Amino acid sequence: MRIIGIDPGLRCLGWGVIEVDGARLKAVANGLCRSSGSDLAARLLSLHQQLTKVLVDHAPDQAAIEQTFVNRDGAGTLKLGQARGVAMLVPAQAGLPVAEYAPNAVKKAVVGVGHADKRQVDHMVRMQLPGAEPEGPDAADALAIAICHAFHAQSAGRLSQAIKAAS
Amino acid sequence: MRIIGIDPGLRCLGWGVIEVDGARLKAVANGLCRSSGSDLAARLLSLHQQLTKVLVDHAPDQAAIEQTFVNRDGAGTLKLGQARGVAMLVPAQAGLPVAEYAPNAVKKAVVGVGHADKRQVDHMVRMQLPGAEPEGPDAADALAIAICHAFHAQSAGRLSQAIKAAS
Repeated sequence: MRIIGIDPGLRCLGWGVIEVDGARLKAVANGLCRSSGSDLAARLLSLHQQLTKVLVDHAPDQAAIEQTFVNRDGAGTLKLGQARGVAMLVPAQAGLPVAEYAPNAVKKAVVGVGHADKRQVDHMVRMQLPGAEPEGPDAADALAIAICHAFHAQSAGRLSQAIKAAS
Repeated sequence: MRIIGIDPGLRCLGWGVIEVDGARLKAVANGLCRSSGSDLAARLLSLHQQLTKVLVDHAPDQAAIEQTFVNRDGAGTLKLGQARGVAMLVPAQAGLPVAEYAPNAVKKAVVGVGHADKRQVDHMVRMQLPGAEPEGPDAADALAIAICHAFHAQSAGRLSQAIKAAS
């Protein structure tokens, strides 16, 4: 199973694709979609086109996206919301289920604690995905989101097997 | 020239298309795109599909969208932002320029004052677009946004003609 993790942002959106084979995780690719300029519609269109190309190139089966902090300034929340809307739309258009995880759930899954800093996340992502070279902090976060989803999907799978075995 | 006005919202997105012929405005169509359920990605996909169909059906040349209040609660701003991101993406994908207007600029253009209530907006929209039957307050707002853009486009046109004539 292939999972794409997405760390949404208007200026810089991170993405990371991993392959899950049983308990083994493998890095496939990661990168950044950037948008700039004052025309918001053009920036959203550019993010949509870049992220659509990522999905075409790497054909993930499932998507996971970071839930967004809303306790920052209103204008920042709105900008992030607009980018996040487009980021969720792209995998939905490809027919993928899109899971959402809170930032501290992602950190807990990857680092073991909910309040890890960016360097710890980057370090643990490289440990869990040998050979991975995140293009930057947002790409490392995106890989962490994909790892988090892989763990949750595995737990859910084991639980349903245990229920089947017990019944 | 045909203009689509969009009043973004996740639960209910209003749209209104008008035809501008010199100083005359004519209502073409209006309606609501609704989404419900707990799967955010599915709701954004549904909004995208419904609004894309509106653009295919009515072929506007330009789009205008309401700027969003950011002084409400963070979770509400984020939801609205996500819907607004998709609402701006659709006309951008169709190659249309997308103008943005603050709510009080829209009210000032249509009612004459910046602090008009929904009933006044609905009343003035019907006055300025004879025969228009807005499907609800969000569709009336969307028609008002289209009217606001028509006024601004006309003013800009007259200004550039005056500059040409004077030079």
